Amino acid sequence: MFDADEAETLKKKGHDVILVRPETSPEDYHGIVAARAILTARGGMTSHAAVVARGMGKTCVVGAKELDVDPAAGRFRVNGRAVKRGQVITVDGTTGRVILGAAKLVTPKAGKEFARLMSWADAKRRMRVRANADIPADARRAREFGAEGIGLCRTEHMFFEGDRITLMREMIVATDEAGRRKALAKLLPIQRRDFEGIFEVMDGLPVTIRLLDPPLHEFLPHTREEIAALAKHAKVPAPQLEKLIESLREANPMLGHRGCRLGITYPEITEMQAQAIFEAAGHVAGKGKKVTVEIMVPLVADVRELVNQTALIRKVAQEVFHREGRAVPYLIGTMIELPRAAVTADDIAKEAEFFSFGTNDLTQTTFGLSRDDAGRFLPFYVEHGLLADDPFQILDQDGVGKLIEMAVKLGRNTRRDLKVGICGEHGGEPSSVKFCHRTGMNYVSCSPFRVPIARLAAAQAALEEAGVVSRTRATV
Amino acid sequence: MFDADEAETLKKKGHDVILVRPETSPEDYHGIVAARAILTARGGMTSHAAVVARGMGKTCVVGAKELDVDPAAGRFRVNGRAVKRGQVITVDGTTGRVILGAAKLVTPKAGKEFARLMSWADAKRRMRVRANADIPADARRAREFGAEGIGLCRTEHMFFEGDRITLMREMIVATDEAGRRKALAKLLPIQRRDFEGIFEVMDGLPVTIRLLDPPLHEFLPHTREEIAALAKHAKVPAPQLEKLIESLREANPMLGHRGCRLGITYPEITEMQAQAIFEAAGHVAGKGKKVTVEIMVPLVADVRELVNQTALIRKVAQEVFHREGRAVPYLIGTMIELPRAAVTADDIAKEAEFFSFGTNDLTQTTFGLSRDDAGRFLPFYVEHGLLADDPFQILDQDGVGKLIEMAVKLGRNTRRDLKVGICGEHGGEPSSVKFCHRTGMNYVSCSPFRVPIARLAAAQAALEEAGVVSRTRATV
Repeated sequence: MFDADEAETLKKKGHDVILVRPETSPEDYHGIVAARAILTARGGMTSHAAVVARGMGKTCVVGAKELDVDPAAGRFRVNGRAVKRGQVITVDGTTGRVILGAAKLVTPKAGKEFARLMSWADAKRRMRVRANADIPADARRAREFGAEGIGLCRTEHMFFEGDRITLMREMIVATDEAGRRKALAKLLPIQRRDFEGIFEVMDGLPVTIRLLDPPLHEFLPHTREEIAALAKHAKVPAPQLEKLIESLREANPMLGHRGCRLGITYPEITEMQAQAIFEAAGHVAGKGKKVTVEIMVPLVADVRELVNQTALIRKVAQEVFHREGRAVPYLIGTMIELPRAAVTADDIAKEAEFFSFGTNDLTQTTFGLSRDDAGRFLPFYVEHGLLADDPFQILDQDGVGKLIEMAVKLGRNTRRDLKVGICGEHGGEPSSVKFCHRTGMNYVSCSPFRVPIARLAAAQAALEEAGVVSRTRATV
Repeated sequence: MFDADEAETLKKKGHDVILVRPETSPEDYHGIVAARAILTARGGMTSHAAVVARGMGKTCVVGAKELDVDPAAGRFRVNGRAVKRGQVITVDGTTGRVILGAAKLVTPKAGKEFARLMSWADAKRRMRVRANADIPADARRAREFGAEGIGLCRTEHMFFEGDRITLMREMIVATDEAGRRKALAKLLPIQRRDFEGIFEVMDGLPVTIRLLDPPLHEFLPHTREEIAALAKHAKVPAPQLEKLIESLREANPMLGHRGCRLGITYPEITEMQAQAIFEAAGHVAGKGKKVTVEIMVPLVADVRELVNQTALIRKVAQEVFHREGRAVPYLIGTMIELPRAAVTADDIAKEAEFFSFGTNDLTQTTFGLSRDDAGRFLPFYVEHGLLADDPFQILDQDGVGKLIEMAVKLGRNTRRDLKVGICGEHGGEPSSVKFCHRTGMNYVSCSPFRVPIARLAAAQAALEEAGVVSRTRATV
């Protein structure tokens, strides 16, 4: 495919797609997500396609200069031959070869040299490296890449698959607390099993679980058929359901009813999630395994929100521990992803046992910049030198970084041993990882595929600090 | 009317509306905007309806306890009598009387006591008080209330009325710069006349003009008929126009392609606005009047954006001054309304000759809280003590205020004589005005009706500083 939208549509229909572009920009992001491989005529190892694909562990060949890509015509030309939309090609990410037709695929394996380099890096670095993983399979892969824990387990992803989305929708369309509790009770065993799977894989390594974060509207159906099906299932008249869905639509969902605002206005959601976490932890501990649980409350702007959620979680913990006759140690902390949380971090640290910087959202709010909408002007900004880099790729140390430094300092003023990490996409970007080291963070967390890069960057940061390597060329 | 949506709809049809509610909350805001008067059964002088209506100069009676308001039934009962939706009543804001039928209306006048109190206040205060005004009539009213300048003149409001919106739409749907320039050339004389009117009324007092701020999508038509009319006018096929309108829709418009991002990607917009400002200033100065112009660039996140816009504006100024043979002094400054602008204020002050804190947007981004969507949980938060106040009414001194203090300090480190003010709604709220005084601001700017309150609060702040009045009861 020669277009990100097309790639996404075909992927949804179950096709394997390779995205072929002259080059990619943030506007093509969803196309890269949908694609199995990416091929571009322009670019180098730090170009957009390369950076994004690397983070996702996708096969990617950039800078294939012989390619003459014509997206409008839906074809590329190379060596006098034209390859059209819909033809099958194979891309070899190791050698950079592009093969016409379907070649046999192999799963790449890391060699001995890789293991040795990583062992050198691990011996030098001070920061821990964790991975962002939502399901046991990702947790397993994260460990293979050397992750020392999960820094971000997003619980909402567990609610999108198969039957779960129906139960989630049942909860959302319920008109009262009793109705919501009924649907949540059905979600509880499913969520508990997810957590058990992850705790078993991680086997004592810390697992940071973030409570439900996205606005409820994201879980609702949008097509007429889906709405009709849900109306039937939930026994609600379709027009009434449509009205409800419309009423949940927000002008700026990024700044809306989401994060801990959900758990505060619907405490039963937080209660169900806490119950699933503590029951799962107890079950796995009961099998003789160690479990290290960290519960993370998202989108806190004021310490009082955290106090509210912490009270709920501790109450549920006591109930579960008492009922099951087994207590499991746990920490409760928060995401620092709003500027207000950063500047009031001294207050928040009174309640939070750890901070995790959600640099994706913190970048959005600090810049007043929606990641979904930035495609209209961000490429122009980078091209014309109005911004040095895309701040969603490379942490903006002058602005967002200043808030982070302030928050770490304020937080540790209140709680000297405050554990601090980062779980935004920047956790796997070398210059950002080095910044985290200099700020005194305990760990970075990134996508599993980026874990080796983060391990290396963390080691480089430690060596630079020790004066072994100069920090920048300018200082040579 | 008993419902904010209904009130808005009827107002749009040209009716005078009185909004009657048991009480109001932020969700009723648009209903208050639409209403000529507000009547509530509950509440006191600091309740939502009272605070909002006061700021808008609207007649409002709150806490009419005898009233039994039933919004669902569309009626209220009082003394055994029922008044239904659509019946005419008159509300007397001075005595609190509610009269059945249409009584004769008078415009209230401020008495001698008021003038004397204000003269006492003016003698004591250090801060200047300006008003937010977009049209000459508002500027006149602002002066009547004692405003010493305009702190925020929003130029976009000039583009919504009558023919102007058609020209604005013509500009937006143009497919190239030449097309945009053609439409902008037609808007130029209209905008220039607006500015001339305001400069004449203000007669030498400073006028801060903010360049175009809202996302372009806000100017586009939404109904099928309006789209068809625009398609015909702009000679664009309707389906193509619909596609364009759809493509300008944003996931989070508050964080989207707006503010200086528009003037940077479409420099011709800034050029037209600067030309209109300088030509108007020259014409009014030519009549022997003094003109004090301050041009304000909105939504700056990085100093490079301001450098870009400043260069454009200064270039246009030179061209106009040369052509007209008359130079007018002017300042260029910026809104500080994004957290990133606050924490990099030292850099921004290298280019900005003044700062004006846009506390509405700064509150939204600092809290990660959309004003349009907050109605779903903010009332719950305030009711349950998760927030002391609605931060859009009363400035959040602990969070947003901390960023403001930091920005003032950083800005003045770079430029000692940096002029600093505030132009968000908080500029007319007493506790927020006192905060501005303590932070060392030069002025506050608020809606014309709030100017007397701001004058009084500014004087109280000065007296408190001097130790004449205790700041809080706790310190008595």
